[in-house]
Amino acid sequence: MFLPRKILEEKLRNMLTEDIGEGDITTALIVPSRATGEAEVRFKEPGVAAGIEESIVLLESLGLKAQALFRDGEEVEANQVIMKISGDARTILSVERTLLNLLSRMSGIATVTRQIVKKVLNAKLKTRVACTRKTAPGLLYFDKKAVLLGGGDTHRLHLDDMILIKGNHITMAGNLQDAIRSAKEKGSFSKKIEVEVASAAAAVKAAEAGADIIMFDNFSPKKVEASVGVLEKAGFLGKVLVEASGGIAAENVLAYASKKVDIVSLGEITESPKALDINLKIARQKSSPV
Amino acid sequence: MFLPRKILEEKLRNMLTEDIGEGDITTALIVPSRATGEAEVRFKEPGVAAGIEESIVLLESLGLKAQALFRDGEEVEANQVIMKISGDARTILSVERTLLNLLSRMSGIATVTRQIVKKVLNAKLKTRVACTRKTAPGLLYFDKKAVLLGGGDTHRLHLDDMILIKGNHITMAGNLQDAIRSAKEKGSFSKKIEVEVASAAAAVKAAEAGADIIMFDNFSPKKVEASVGVLEKAGFLGKVLVEASGGIAAENVLAYASKKVDIVSLGEITESPKALDINLKIARQKSSPV
Amino acid sequence: MFLPRKILEEKLRNMLTEDIGEGDITTALIVPSRATGEAEVRFKEPGVAAGIEESIVLLESLGLKAQALFRDGEEVEANQVIMKISGDARTILSVERTLLNLLSRMSGIATVTRQIVKKVLNAKLKTRVACTRKTAPGLLYFDKKAVLLGGGDTHRLHLDDMILIKGNHITMAGNLQDAIRSAKEKGSFSKKIEVEVASAAAAVKAAEAGADIIMFDNFSPKKVEASVGVLEKAGFLGKVLVEASGGIAAENVLAYASKKVDIVSLGEITESPKALDINLKIARQKSSPV
Amino acid sequence: MFLPRKILEEKLRNMLTEDIGEGDITTALIVPSRATGEAEVRFKEPGVAAGIEESIVLLESLGLKAQALFRDGEEVEANQVIMKISGDARTILSVERTLLNLLSRMSGIATVTRQIVKKVLNAKLKTRVACTRKTAPGLLYFDKKAVLLGGGDTHRLHLDDMILIKGNHITMAGNLQDAIRSAKEKGSFSKKIEVEVASAAAAVKAAEAGADIIMFDNFSPKKVEASVGVLEKAGFLGKVLVEASGGIAAENVLAYASKKVDIVSLGEITESPKALDINLKIARQKSSPV
Amino acid sequence: MFLPRKILEEKLRNMLTEDIGEGDITTALIVPSRATGEAEVRFKEPGVAAGIEESIVLLESLGLKAQALFRDGEEVEANQVIMKISGDARTILSVERTLLNLLSRMSGIATVTRQIVKKVLNAKLKTRVACTRKTAPGLLYFDKKAVLLGGGDTHRLHLDDMILIKGNHITMAGNLQDAIRSAKEKGSFSKKIEVEVASAAAAVKAAEAGADIIMFDNFSPKKVEASVGVLEKAGFLGKVLVEASGGIAAENVLAYASKKVDIVSLGEITESPKALDINLKIARQKSSPV
Amino acid sequence: MFLPRKILEEKLRNMLTEDIGEGDITTALIVPSRATGEAEVRFKEPGVAAGIEESIVLLESLGLKAQALFRDGEEVEANQVIMKISGDARTILSVERTLLNLLSRMSGIATVTRQIVKKVLNAKLKTRVACTRKTAPGLLYFDKKAVLLGGGDTHRLHLDDMILIKGNHITMAGNLQDAIRSAKEKGSFSKKIEVEVASAAAAVKAAEAGADIIMFDNFSPKKVEASVGVLEKAGFLGKVLVEASGGIAAENVLAYASKKVDIVSLGEITESPKALDINLKIARQKSSPV
Repeated sequence: MFLPRKILEEKLRNMLTEDIGEGDITTALIVPSRATGEAEVRFKEPGVAAGIEESIVLLESLGLKAQALFRDGEEVEANQVIMKISGDARTILSVERTLLNLLSRMSGIATVTRQIVKKVLNAKLKTRVACTRKTAPGLLYFDKKAVLLGGGDTHRLHLDDMILIKGNHITMAGNLQDAIRSAKEKGSFSKKIEVEVASAAAAVKAAEAGADIIMFDNFSPKKVEASVGVLEKAGFLGKVLVEASGGIAAENVLAYASKKVDIVSLGEITESPKALDINLKIARQKSSPV
Repeated sequence: MFLPRKILEEKLRNMLTEDIGEGDITTALIVPSRATGEAEVRFKEPGVAAGIEESIVLLESLGLKAQALFRDGEEVEANQVIMKISGDARTILSVERTLLNLLSRMSGIATVTRQIVKKVLNAKLKTRVACTRKTAPGLLYFDKKAVLLGGGDTHRLHLDDMILIKGNHITMAGNLQDAIRSAKEKGSFSKKIEVEVASAAAAVKAAEAGADIIMFDNFSPKKVEASVGVLEKAGFLGKVLVEASGGIAAENVLAYASKKVDIVSLGEITESPKALDINLKIARQKSSPV
Repeated sequence: MFLPRKILEEKLRNMLTEDIGEGDITTALIVPSRATGEAEVRFKEPGVAAGIEESIVLLESLGLKAQALFRDGEEVEANQVIMKISGDARTILSVERTLLNLLSRMSGIATVTRQIVKKVLNAKLKTRVACTRKTAPGLLYFDKKAVLLGGGDTHRLHLDDMILIKGNHITMAGNLQDAIRSAKEKGSFSKKIEVEVASAAAAVKAAEAGADIIMFDNFSPKKVEASVGVLEKAGFLGKVLVEASGGIAAENVLAYASKKVDIVSLGEITESPKALDINLKIARQKSSPV
Repeated sequence: MFLPRKILEEKLRNMLTEDIGEGDITTALIVPSRATGEAEVRFKEPGVAAGIEESIVLLESLGLKAQALFRDGEEVEANQVIMKISGDARTILSVERTLLNLLSRMSGIATVTRQIVKKVLNAKLKTRVACTRKTAPGLLYFDKKAVLLGGGDTHRLHLDDMILIKGNHITMAGNLQDAIRSAKEKGSFSKKIEVEVASAAAAVKAAEAGADIIMFDNFSPKKVEASVGVLEKAGFLGKVLVEASGGIAAENVLAYASKKVDIVSLGEITESPKALDINLKIARQKSSPV
Repeated sequence: MFLPRKILEEKLRNMLTEDIGEGDITTALIVPSRATGEAEVRFKEPGVAAGIEESIVLLESLGLKAQALFRDGEEVEANQVIMKISGDARTILSVERTLLNLLSRMSGIATVTRQIVKKVLNAKLKTRVACTRKTAPGLLYFDKKAVLLGGGDTHRLHLDDMILIKGNHITMAGNLQDAIRSAKEKGSFSKKIEVEVASAAAAVKAAEAGADIIMFDNFSPKKVEASVGVLEKAGFLGKVLVEASGGIAAENVLAYASKKVDIVSLGEITESPKALDINLKIARQKSSPV
Repeated sequence: MFLPRKILEEKLRNMLTEDIGEGDITTALIVPSRATGEAEVRFKEPGVAAGIEESIVLLESLGLKAQALFRDGEEVEANQVIMKISGDARTILSVERTLLNLLSRMSGIATVTRQIVKKVLNAKLKTRVACTRKTAPGLLYFDKKAVLLGGGDTHRLHLDDMILIKGNHITMAGNLQDAIRSAKEKGSFSKKIEVEVASAAAAVKAAEAGADIIMFDNFSPKKVEASVGVLEKAGFLGKVLVEASGGIAAENVLAYASKKVDIVSLGEITESPKALDINLKIARQKSSPV
């Protein structure tokens, strides 16, 4: 997910525009128009840095100098300074909240993702930890990128980049296998086909019809284990990927990940992330700029 | 925060555009182009409905029929259906995730707000429960509206609608009282002036200089109590509003709210809300439309 | 109303895009592609400079050099040069009209505002001179900022930053006092409440119900005086702000301002401002750049 | 200047979005959500109606019913109702100011244009009355259309629809005749070429080089008369069009128009128009809708 | 590639806005404002219809009635009418060129795609005919959809929906196999990996490293045949997909398609399509509307 | 058609945004984040360079260095390098396709235009070669500019810059001459009036009514010759311009151009241009930057 700086800048500027309305009336009244300041952005609790690149792009596009002390994806201790900013004081103060809102959310997502990924790795498992499309509307790019920085898998980005046949689709389409065969025949060769199933039998049918990935939706760990066994017996293990989804959270992730599934996906990572506590303190600029 | 439907529609359509990319390739392959369906949106856990109006506007703008069974702000039990949708099946399936992402976030925010507001009311307190500007970038309108529906106070909407002098401003401006006086003299009569203070002494100075609202930032409940006492002695209680902010959460809100402050503000309501579990199930349309 | 440069740039570029269509066909045909020029922007009549900051941002964003000889808010004599521009000649010629249209309007607004403000100050009055929401659609930011630079008060910026209950609202809401009480109870603590009244009696009722500001709408000066007297007797003078609005212009502003009102507001400042006469003359660039 | 309704709607909605911010907090607090009203829009002073079509498009796009009692371009007496509106009361109140700002400006422009056009017609002259590019930034379409409705000529719309060589262009291009010849040879056959001149001699040169239109810029009426004579002698009258521009206003328009020029152009029509006084009064809706 | 109507409408309206500028001055002058017409859109040469859905959406969004006589993807003879339109005459005339430009391009792309697809099918081959990212900037959705309607494969839609490692990437990344392994390990499980190779040896290496698809870039048909043989010997045929690309056109497509490749891709389909000759004739509306 | 760089930048960035989706996942996975490269853009076949200015603006706006070896409008041999680019490798690879798509289309249009223009010039004819409004939706500016660079005439840019009365307009308007007279009287003096005719007789009527340009639509060369003769006899040759349009292509352009018409217009130039074959090769950056 590499975005040229100019494209990123536009997305970020829109965030600032939303917050600032017709202008920051407080700084206009209180802060002299040529005052310069230097500010530090500090993690108040430990976590994984995410949004550093976005912050630098936003700040520099506003004419500020910004120096990152950590890179995206690095782990930061409580009370460490992650970024120094210097330049026009009114601009720093006007962008403060937008900057922190983005950094806090992205770092929060990266942090929880990293915790779950580590849990899986520590259990010597190779299962991938993926997010879902349960992102905050408008923040798709940022939520998905934060997951990547935490070590997770972005899963599908849009409705246009993988064929994912869910229960609701089958309800409308009718027969599961016909639906898969039709997708396989008429869908682009460049896309994978994933199918959500409700039983081991359906999983085998989906694999037979040519699905690349099988999603066990809202299965108990036990049911996952049994279903994987059925797929194995049918000769599909290793040939299709298996994803467990629904009802998985940090607490029970190992119960699922240990059942030979290739992917576990968790909506909560991006749907209900706990924002990291990050703040910004400004000081009058000393002689030497950053 | 009344928005004419057409304005709201534009905001909502942008959310869908983000998710859909160049088009939903799954429904295009699997679901017949003239198939119609009827769907139910259901709360999987109890909570306060928020985003109903937005959902109806979004769905109707796409040519679907939508019927709300609850109004925004009403409390919903687990497993209750809150909305019925009927019409073009591809459209319903394409908008499903965007719809649920918005509803889940807004209802999650309204639910936690309501819980805190009730806690305060049950303690026979009149303290207002406010959110802050810690909203998800791009979702300001929706986050604030959900707070309103939960019974909370939106606080400032933008940087242009109240003069709020925080610590960082004072650092750059110099003297606290001069800053307030300057804001009072040069700022518009239509705006209130709020000042963040770090001590009771500063609170009195701010009140003397003409602040309309005093914010105790990151005070312990004890320090809040003492500071309110100092303000009372100085004759400012009832003349200025007092807000406690920083470090306040559902757990300790009463410790603050019970200290004669007019407002408690909590960043977590909009910064780290737990999305409500809501789902959508589609069925082939029967003869009678919604 | 401080806007970071990048945000301002976007607003300004849209103005240029409107005027330029698919491109300036005259300069493309007549002016050599590498020619550079230097231009002077000159006030043809005396007035208050406004739009200087916007001009510099616009010109620099187009790669031109621009040097302001006056600051926004300063008074300029007839025939004084306020700005020097140098760089690509085609660009200077293409932006000329957009630049002058903005400068002329903003300076025109600032000039008339200053005249009225001075009139009030010369009469030793402290009454604020405010504009209204009668701005040119799309130019809210620029019209309001010009008022500020002229020494006026911006009044409300949007429909979201003050609760202003006008006659039409009361017609729909029913009882005046109930409306105010409801606004006071349910509206955000961060907003002031202003109420438009048609009589002294209504003014008292509004004040009793908790209005922060009372607007006398379309009162004669005599009626203003009498009504202020009634408010004074009722003990509200100094406790609520009083605004006179409607039918006030440069000619009769003192008749209103002298009646102990805190604010006089005039629609004409931004609704029908006389644009200042400003021009731009270009010359071939000499050796030394600006 | 025919714009399909949908295109116009977009332009108009942006105006409303600017004014409304995050929503109308007053109507949301005061006006019941299902209340309906009926409103009348009334001219408080006589003038030419302009902006009726735009108003209807805006109002209907918001779901309101709107009935025009006058057509664009018709003359309206003081106190006549020009439009009736009915529907959702909150929506009517939220759009009121945007609607009136547009109507007042457009009708103001149409009114002053009509006055000048009538003056010329009453003097039995066929001279066209044109506006210039001195429009309010962002309002080009609306300002130009209002001129048309008043009976005026829109002149150039953008920098891309006529080749207009002004003094500043000649300064950069060098020789007047070479510039015209180059434009004639390389410019599109679909565009006219107009040349601003400072003397009768230059006018003859421009005509000889192939200009379609000659603009006398800032000439006194006397100088216009003499220059037209020179052009006549040189055999160009009736072959090129002649425009007088600069320093022309309602007061002196006949002095120019009577000098055999084809067009007089006036910046003031769109640069400093006096907005017409128009208001809107709402009432609770009676049984029968509009 | 299913897009809800509202999303499509926005894309289409932008096309009209580009063409119409400040408005259609011809229809405004010549066509009475309430005139209605009925028009027929006719293929002047045989071809595959594409853009019918888009046309209907565009026309209906402008308030016109439109009736399609063919469906997207159907083959149309010369001189057949494909669509009837009725309604406001000015609107029909203003949208005519935009409508035809879109229909002509899409139908031209669909027609050439269908010809090539048929050639392959007639030769009893199962090779897919795909387009590339060589689309007209801004028309990605429409160009890809036209390919689909012609029976072709859309290939990758964006840079975000398949990992496609081309020669230029390898130049920067270094080792081919390391690059693929890194993509396989760190890229999302939801994406396929395609690798462009310049030799049979590289193809085998790519397959060994885990590529899902191998692209033979600018190979002669002979070299394709030999390389497929090498892949077969190495046991990868049927396990990876093979795409031939570069230098393939309608003339030589069978020479490639007959070499056991799974996909042939042709840039020319969308890069240099011959627009189909389609016209629109209007008549005054008779009594009975469409 | 001179556009200031900043305006052009915005148009170009939108093209890149379309192609890149949520980001380039291939370069993100394969190319190190700080790698720099240098690339050459090369013509694979001879042609006229067009889009060089646009390319430089796009590349520089992304922070890349770009050096043009040819100017727009120059003729390039096969295998000549036209541009060198250096800088961030990920950015170069992400923009490659967008850049080439634009360059290939613009150069293709300029090349075919030049060929036709030369054919006419070599025949010692002064007839102008014009394009039409048959441009790719969204690419009007770029298509028209490429025609200009090839030596052609842009014709009308929008529906707002010339009054062009076509057959469909006459159908709705009624009488040809009345339509022209009405346009002449009520249309702006700044616009030319062109009329499409189907016979010599209609041409004379149009000229008599005051048309500036007569378009012979879909005439055979013989009919063009005869009609020009009729116009000549009627004394209009040299007084009105004559355009032949419809059914004209590179093959038969001289048959038309030799019939004393002033302009021949060809839809195919912009409607079905053959894109020029242009590629980009990257190498790791050596020590000395471009």
